[in-house]
Amino acid sequence: MEAAKIYLDYNATTPVAPEVVEVVSHSLKDLWGNPSSSHEYGFKAKEAIAKSRNELAKMIGATSHEIIFTSGGTEANNMVIESITKLYTNAHIITTTLEHPSIKQPLEHVPESISVSYISAKEQSGCAVDVEDVISAIRPNTKLVSIMLANNETGVIQPIREIANAVKQLNPKILVHTDAAQAIGKIPVNVNNLNVDLLTIVGHKFYGPRNGALYIRSGCKILPLMYGGNQESTLRSGTENTPMIVGLGEAARLVNCNLKSYSTKYATVRDYMEEKLKELPNVIINGQSDVRERLPNTCNVSFLGFNGREILKKCQVTLASTGAACHSSETKVSSILLASGIPKERAAGAVRLSIGRETTFSDIDIVVKELKEIVSK
Amino acid sequence: MEAAKIYLDYNATTPVAPEVVEVVSHSLKDLWGNPSSSHEYGFKAKEAIAKSRNELAKMIGATSHEIIFTSGGTEANNMVIESITKLYTNAHIITTTLEHPSIKQPLEHVPESISVSYISAKEQSGCAVDVEDVISAIRPNTKLVSIMLANNETGVIQPIREIANAVKQLNPKILVHTDAAQAIGKIPVNVNNLNVDLLTIVGHKFYGPRNGALYIRSGCKILPLMYGGNQESTLRSGTENTPMIVGLGEAARLVNCNLKSYSTKYATVRDYMEEKLKELPNVIINGQSDVRERLPNTCNVSFLGFNGREILKKCQVTLASTGAACHSSETKVSSILLASGIPKERAAGAVRLSIGRETTFSDIDIVVKELKEIVSK
Ligand SMILES: Cc1ncc(COP(=O)(O)O)c(C=O)c1O
Ligand SMILES: Cc1ncc(COP(=O)(O)O)c(C=O)c1O
Repeated sequence: MEAAKIYLDYNATTPVAPEVVEVVSHSLKDLWGNPSSSHEYGFKAKEAIAKSRNELAKMIGATSHEIIFTSGGTEANNMVIESITKLYTNAHIITTTLEHPSIKQPLEHVPESISVSYISAKEQSGCAVDVEDVISAIRPNTKLVSIMLANNETGVIQPIREIANAVKQLNPKILVHTDAAQAIGKIPVNVNNLNVDLLTIVGHKFYGPRNGALYIRSGCKILPLMYGGNQESTLRSGTENTPMIVGLGEAARLVNCNLKSYSTKYATVRDYMEEKLKELPNVIINGQSDVRERLPNTCNVSFLGFNGREILKKCQVTLASTGAACHSSETKVSSILLASGIPKERAAGAVRLSIGRETTFSDIDIVVKELKEIVSK
Repeated sequence: MEAAKIYLDYNATTPVAPEVVEVVSHSLKDLWGNPSSSHEYGFKAKEAIAKSRNELAKMIGATSHEIIFTSGGTEANNMVIESITKLYTNAHIITTTLEHPSIKQPLEHVPESISVSYISAKEQSGCAVDVEDVISAIRPNTKLVSIMLANNETGVIQPIREIANAVKQLNPKILVHTDAAQAIGKIPVNVNNLNVDLLTIVGHKFYGPRNGALYIRSGCKILPLMYGGNQESTLRSGTENTPMIVGLGEAARLVNCNLKSYSTKYATVRDYMEEKLKELPNVIINGQSDVRERLPNTCNVSFLGFNGREILKKCQVTLASTGAACHSSETKVSSILLASGIPKERAAGAVRLSIGRETTFSDIDIVVKELKEIVSK
């Protein structure tokens, strides 16, 4: 019999919460009307979407008309970048080398008239970017600063509030966007506290379905990525995916009710795991520092002298990854760790262990035992 | 007690087939792994997506690598238009005035260097566009012809095969796109028979979930609308929405198994309804002609001297619409009917009654009775 697997790849994607499965399944049967239809099947669907929008707004301290549902984080991120390239010629955008491909790639496809500055993180800054580096990159034509709230590989929380405050002080017209894909459901996220204009939400990172949303601060001008039937306040056309939207609302409701207990649990289990990992030889936890906080569920650990990918291949029980899932077929060292200031040799030996709501101490014991056996050979 | 409603708005959206609800619900629980993950949860999801892609390919006579999953028809249509505007400067696009807003609107937002010719339909051509009108609009810089396969309001099937053949004969490099949103699940749709390069598929019009797909003929160059993790052969980034994709595959499988019985049933019930409607005073069926076929489930009927919207408001039982749902909050006469060659007075009195897999003769009797009472007052 095959051994039961232990999934520690929750930053790649999470299971769907049973409550979310329930409401999505129910909505497929009961809320299939077209939300734009002028009859009761339409009204019912429309109402359910409004309710979901409220939950999402509540989750990030926004008002509901500031939430636009999208097909996912990739769409939300592309919408932000595309909007800037369509609104301005000769605009300048500041971002980091730590971003997810859904920010990095669209930036590689902007028209020639748009320039982009990339800020890297430093290990001595806790694998985070420095506020001053962002500020000194600002130019008179800077229109957007887009920096993720928490890195998907190290879990390091970037100083978005400090960056946004400093940017706004210099030029309040510059839009500040943060990709909060990895932060939501793990730490408190509040758009006013962060002082951002735009924020990306990704359902499948917090036990929701595979859709997402973009927060757009009231008064902030953003163009649609898709045109058509003028749904979502004309900002996102397409017949609304009611069941997924309702599911995303339910996932947000769970976060609204339980965030504190989720994050306490994450931290307890993750810290327990890191204590045990540190007992193994030649182990370094990446991104752990006194300078910056990390996501409570994320542990990026390097086994010096080993290749992270090879370690995972040998695992019979542990399901984890060396970095973002969309890179998983590549063999090279994580560019994100390098951009975080981690030396190459350490980056090569890195494994990302990310914890979920279900993870137990006993899961951790089994995983650490398996890793120990592999690296002791 | 309120009377049970009879839904005749299946062209706006359909219920989700019980089989589809079942597989989506199951997939939410069982296939939540990230399809890009290099471990078994990922592999399982990836495999399910491949299976679904096969069903879609089979449904339209394509090969599976020619199918790209999207968030819906709006995205697929926008992707086609955006791709042309990004690939070429000074390109020329031919379309019709009958298209859905998800083609019409992106065309209104193309850069100035792109020119667009709009062909209208004529009533004497069966509310369809004439092949010659399309051909005489071709210019040396024409890059795309985008014409819907079946109109959502009249159900009239446009002569796509004849258009594509004529276009290709003149210039095989011109891409031919057809929005098959309304045709799939109602009539046979085959990309080779139609001779098209690009074809839009919309799940929620054939008892599937609220996602869709774009068929891209092998060798035909199309750019992504969204960049990121390079999913879907790099053409559509974003973590795949496995449950929706699997659901779309199931909806396609149902069409592959049952198309013949669906369309026979539609035609029988719709024709029965039209016979009964014709017994009412001052009734004209729009788009019915000897020249062009219509979708077997669609009936666009004008009550002369009445306003279609007012009729529907008075209905206690019948749930229908005067046109596309995304227009339902507007009060003006359907621009699609006008573009189809229907005179204004008739267009004002039009109601679209579209039939579903569940519709019974007795439903029709009740609906016609209700309409009769309203127009007899
Ligand atoms: C002809 C046609 N094309 C495209 C669409 C848009 O697809 P979606 O609802 O998935 O955005 C629709 C229906 O809404 C349609 O009727
Ligand atoms: C930081 C970050 N941003 C964006 C995304 C992309 O979102 P989606 O998977 O919905 O395309 C992800 C995960 O895939 C992510 O980790």
